[in-house]
Amino acid sequence: MSYIRIYMVLVLSLVMKQGVFAQSIGRENKPNIVVFFVDDLGWQDMSEPFHTTKTAINKRFRTPHIEELAKVSTKFTNAYASSVCTPSRVSFLTGLNAAHHRVTNWTNPRQDRPTDAKDEFLDVPDWNYNGLSPISNIPHTVHATVLPQLLKDNGYYTIHIGKAHWASAGTPGADPLNLGFMVNIGGHSAGSPRSYYGKENFGNTTEQTNIQAVPHLNAYHGSTIFLTEALTLEARKALEGPIANKKPFFLHFSNYAVHTPIQADPRFVQKYIDDGLSEVEAAYASLVEGMDKSIGDIVDFLKEQGIYDNTVIVFVSDNGGLSLSPPRGGERHTQNLPLRAGKGSLYEGGIRVPLLIKDVEEQKRKNNDTPVMMEDLFPTILEITGVDNKLLLNSIDGHSILPLLKGRVDKSWKERPLVWHYPNKWIPDDGPGINFFTAMRKGDFKLLYNMKNGAVELYNLKNDIGEKNNLALKQRQKTKELSDLLTERLKIWKAQMPINKNTNTRIPYPNEIY
Amino acid sequence: MSYIRIYMVLVLSLVMKQGVFAQSIGRENKPNIVVFFVDDLGWQDMSEPFHTTKTAINKRFRTPHIEELAKVSTKFTNAYASSVCTPSRVSFLTGLNAAHHRVTNWTNPRQDRPTDAKDEFLDVPDWNYNGLSPISNIPHTVHATVLPQLLKDNGYYTIHIGKAHWASAGTPGADPLNLGFMVNIGGHSAGSPRSYYGKENFGNTTEQTNIQAVPHLNAYHGSTIFLTEALTLEARKALEGPIANKKPFFLHFSNYAVHTPIQADPRFVQKYIDDGLSEVEAAYASLVEGMDKSIGDIVDFLKEQGIYDNTVIVFVSDNGGLSLSPPRGGERHTQNLPLRAGKGSLYEGGIRVPLLIKDVEEQKRKNNDTPVMMEDLFPTILEITGVDNKLLLNSIDGHSILPLLKGRVDKSWKERPLVWHYPNKWIPDDGPGINFFTAMRKGDFKLLYNMKNGAVELYNLKNDIGEKNNLALKQRQKTKELSDLLTERLKIWKAQMPINKNTNTRIPYPNEIY
Repeated sequence: MSYIRIYMVLVLSLVMKQGVFAQSIGRENKPNIVVFFVDDLGWQDMSEPFHTTKTAINKRFRTPHIEELAKVSTKFTNAYASSVCTPSRVSFLTGLNAAHHRVTNWTNPRQDRPTDAKDEFLDVPDWNYNGLSPISNIPHTVHATVLPQLLKDNGYYTIHIGKAHWASAGTPGADPLNLGFMVNIGGHSAGSPRSYYGKENFGNTTEQTNIQAVPHLNAYHGSTIFLTEALTLEARKALEGPIANKKPFFLHFSNYAVHTPIQADPRFVQKYIDDGLSEVEAAYASLVEGMDKSIGDIVDFLKEQGIYDNTVIVFVSDNGGLSLSPPRGGERHTQNLPLRAGKGSLYEGGIRVPLLIKDVEEQKRKNNDTPVMMEDLFPTILEITGVDNKLLLNSIDGHSILPLLKGRVDKSWKERPLVWHYPNKWIPDDGPGINFFTAMRKGDFKLLYNMKNGAVELYNLKNDIGEKNNLALKQRQKTKELSDLLTERLKIWKAQMPINKNTNTRIPYPNEIY
Repeated sequence: MSYIRIYMVLVLSLVMKQGVFAQSIGRENKPNIVVFFVDDLGWQDMSEPFHTTKTAINKRFRTPHIEELAKVSTKFTNAYASSVCTPSRVSFLTGLNAAHHRVTNWTNPRQDRPTDAKDEFLDVPDWNYNGLSPISNIPHTVHATVLPQLLKDNGYYTIHIGKAHWASAGTPGADPLNLGFMVNIGGHSAGSPRSYYGKENFGNTTEQTNIQAVPHLNAYHGSTIFLTEALTLEARKALEGPIANKKPFFLHFSNYAVHTPIQADPRFVQKYIDDGLSEVEAAYASLVEGMDKSIGDIVDFLKEQGIYDNTVIVFVSDNGGLSLSPPRGGERHTQNLPLRAGKGSLYEGGIRVPLLIKDVEEQKRKNNDTPVMMEDLFPTILEITGVDNKLLLNSIDGHSILPLLKGRVDKSWKERPLVWHYPNKWIPDDGPGINFFTAMRKGDFKLLYNMKNGAVELYNLKNDIGEKNNLALKQRQKTKELSDLLTERLKIWKAQMPINKNTNTRIPYPNEIY
């Protein structure tokens, strides 16, 4: 096993040396990049509002550090991710849309085990259920040039902290060190922690190993520390080296919070119980505040070290907030109101995410309502760091949003079509926008196509952010336009469609139905 | 038929309006773009040298207007195209590599008829033998956003003159007007003219229609005019409108010369006979000089009209010079020396082409030996014209070479890998580098893989431009590196491989052999 591992790293570094290097052609003084890649945080789950007004949900949360960050950032109020985590994470590292990279669902920690629930009528297609791979010939993976490797090859010190979940154990992409990260604390093939508690050794036990036990944190085992805090301390420690050596760094800090299990962060939970929240929602809010403090601690550290001004900070979530209840409290699918549904759904609740970007150039709070997508972050970071993209193995789907940070917005940004594709089955019960959906947003309009029953929905998000008023029958021309365009994109990407079990044929594309 | 045609144009214009528009974000005063896209012109087939010295072959030709253009241009001495015409033409209009767009061979003027010769051992894959399509759902075509449509949508007046050959008759891509050209003179599904002679009506006869008869030139039928001259006069005429209306234009001028039939241009041939050239080679040289005069006439017209300074001029060939004899004179495969072989081959003679670019900013002769490729011209022209690429249906493979025009060359340009992929059979006899080859150039090194017998060759072009000294056994590490990288690219593009007829299995990728 360890022999294979060493061999893989050798092969990998050889492949990397051959295939990928580039030279900075950008800014003279390379900025540091810190990405707070939060897990399962909904668009509303902060005291900082991303809607036009502060909502009741915003008021539940205390996230003062995110509020501070927003004051010096561009706030993207129409930012999107995939509806579940691994597709988003792969899009971020590759610049590819999920329909294109084919890691359309979350990956099983164990190899060769698709995570889809069984369906009576449809078979899911043969998607890349082992995730992302930095080398070729790994079955059921997408092989692409990955962001941390590019940055490392261009002189960046690359650090991964927290949840990885890019690929299944046994494949090279499961280990962040194989993806170009030079440091990995806490990242492996699992998408959630067995426990947030140090006193429970974060799920590690002597009797057995559990694939969701958080690795690399033995020093904290048995202590009263919470996982979010342990990762934050480790992130600060990991930054010391590059700062001392005046080396630009890329910190990818992906807290496990606020993913399930919804365990109370004891530092913060009492306030929320006092506020009258249920036990589970108080625990959830405490996970959020712990994550917020983690951001504040890192920002403070950057300021102490005198490198804050030269550090680009990105804050984003990997999908919409969880709206299944249980494990969340309250009524099902109300947790992201006014957005409809939540994680797993192609309604706004499942895909719209908070996004803040603090550039290194002096900046005040700006709002930007241009629709942008997870895969845009890859070329954006390349452009910011001056990394050339000519040696990528693959062409990419995202576009650098640096012009938007600089305040340049033209019509083509507003009208650029965005695509979500989920030919998978997340949970046994088909929910609102959940299981076997594909969708496109273009301008104010959004089309959803239910692959299971052929239903097509059209919403005008400008005056119907809650997707309540289906315009498909009223605005037939717009519905046709988006059906055609979505079909074209899917075909060009050779996107996979589910199979009808009875007829053993592929499910029709949207414009074959409409 | 005409009903279908009208319907198609309607559908098309609807699709175009939906899918593709953009706004200029570039230079204030939009430059005009003139592309002289020459057919079958070899790297040596001009008095202007593209090699380090003027060769014996250069000395055969008289191309004073190309020499003049070179004085104000960047001369790319390591520019590449595909080994046959349609793949190059599709790459130019789409920015996609041929391995990716799958129009890997020249297209039959008639629909649904692959042009491959029969092979005893291999079946060619199911390539896109109907060519390029601006709309989806056309069988065996690649559907992509096309350059003239983008330019038209951005305010350019778009003109096609001469050979089109982007798709087979009966599919929409066969008509340049369906690809975003507003004017089309002489372009259709055929790749060569039935006759260059006006007195032969360019192949049009009253008794029958021949698919290679050149269309739209009835006004010249029966006259003594040569095809090259007729097209040049038409190009000048087509430019009058946009010039009078002060509208920026894109002129894609693709002379049929110097493709077969090698018919003497009576204006120039005698000189070459007097020089002692054989009848066929004198005729060939006269085709070249006619093409050169055509360039000169257009350049003179631009100067007369006072718009030369604001016009970007590109001069390029669609593949290497023909080296089959007959129809060329002389010994087989000597016509491009010191380059090996010619059209149809993945040796340099088949793929290295002349490329000049005159930018609108004042410029003196510059040489640039950076390897560049046909698909680079698409993003280059987009960048020059300030057309945004966010609304393309597809991501692209080429890279804008504008930085090279501005003299910026970094290491990643030099080391960028270029790929050729020809899983097809051009002619019945397998020749040098002809039929079932795939290849990669990276830096000074070039790897060729013969899919039919598994042989791998490696050359160092820096000191072996004639590809005589195969280093595959001497430099095993470099051979392995390029085999691996070529395989990775082919896999990522899902490039098609031939099928072994005996075993009915796909031919191995290069690194499965080496």
